[in-house]
Amino acid sequence: MFSDNLLKQLDFIKEIDKVKYIQRKTRLFNSNRNENDAEHSWHLALMALVLAEHSNEPVDILKVVKMVLIHDIVEIDAGDVFIYDTQKNHSNTDQERLAANRIFGLLPESQAQEFVTIWEEFEAGETAEAKFARAMDRLEPLLQNTSNNGGTWREFNVPYKKVYEKKSHIKTGSEVIWNYAENLINESVEKGILKDE
Amino acid sequence: MFSDNLLKQLDFIKEIDKVKYIQRKTRLFNSNRNENDAEHSWHLALMALVLAEHSNEPVDILKVVKMVLIHDIVEIDAGDVFIYDTQKNHSNTDQERLAANRIFGLLPESQAQEFVTIWEEFEAGETAEAKFARAMDRLEPLLQNTSNNGGTWREFNVPYKKVYEKKSHIKTGSEVIWNYAENLINESVEKGILKDE
Repeated sequence: MFSDNLLKQLDFIKEIDKVKYIQRKTRLFNSNRNENDAEHSWHLALMALVLAEHSNEPVDILKVVKMVLIHDIVEIDAGDVFIYDTQKNHSNTDQERLAANRIFGLLPESQAQEFVTIWEEFEAGETAEAKFARAMDRLEPLLQNTSNNGGTWREFNVPYKKVYEKKSHIKTGSEVIWNYAENLINESVEKGILKDE
Repeated sequence: MFSDNLLKQLDFIKEIDKVKYIQRKTRLFNSNRNENDAEHSWHLALMALVLAEHSNEPVDILKVVKMVLIHDIVEIDAGDVFIYDTQKNHSNTDQERLAANRIFGLLPESQAQEFVTIWEEFEAGETAEAKFARAMDRLEPLLQNTSNNGGTWREFNVPYKKVYEKKSHIKTGSEVIWNYAENLINESVEKGILKDE
């Protein structure tokens, strides 16, 4: 009665509801309420749309938006890894690949393939779109932490050097945004909400 | 030191964080946790991306995605109006217009204009993109309510006729999805989770 495509798409739509339960370490702006992956992904999509002019290279903005909307879906199976976690590698683990294949695999084949490919492209961080999308992913928690008196930096005792190293990747997506971000990091040290050691 | 555009865009990005606090009446799938507007908007964007082939008319999918990502931002000032509320008209109130002008007005002028225009187009529901975007907005809570043993239909004592009338607008965006939705509504009556009177 209903097409196979539609039923598969609806299965995927129901499955990804779980993204709303995945808590990030970072908290909302001026808040102590943790952000979840769905809220985070929505915010990145809007950030990408309004900040696109600052990308170092021209980008296919629809692809960037798709990347940020789906980038954390693998965490349904693989869980959120904190960027400053020293035990776990944040990038593209076997577990995340399996998750991508399972969850995107709920979709009709051509869509599943498209989403797996876009997710891999985001993770690899080599194309203009992936670099800009990843810059958004690093910028949001930086803005949140500075609004939260240091936020996760203070909570997890993360030093300036480490923050600077992680955030400096923003530069590969946008020099303009990196200039702003670098200034914000330096100001945070001056304000005493990020420890310089 | 930083461009006026960038500073305005960042003000907008910070302001829209408030969307994460706007609680909807509807609850997550198989859950009694209320959904918020950011989670809802994220879900609609992914629904639009995966279901686009079922639109009655070809759509500019980037525009549809923008519509659903921003459609509830006005609720920061105007609040969420429940679709079955009999006291308030759901569509495009003066308060919502003022909200759109204030919040999108934080952006640089051309972006503010673009977002206000897209929001108005969504509210008017006349273009192919608006019809499809609005179909997504009606489909998600239908799927949620059927997963929640009637959800807000039972909670607020909403009868079949009213649900059918509101949801039948899905047809203007997608006949295919409406066929599925209509079947789901009728099944809900048979299951006793939607009262037929």
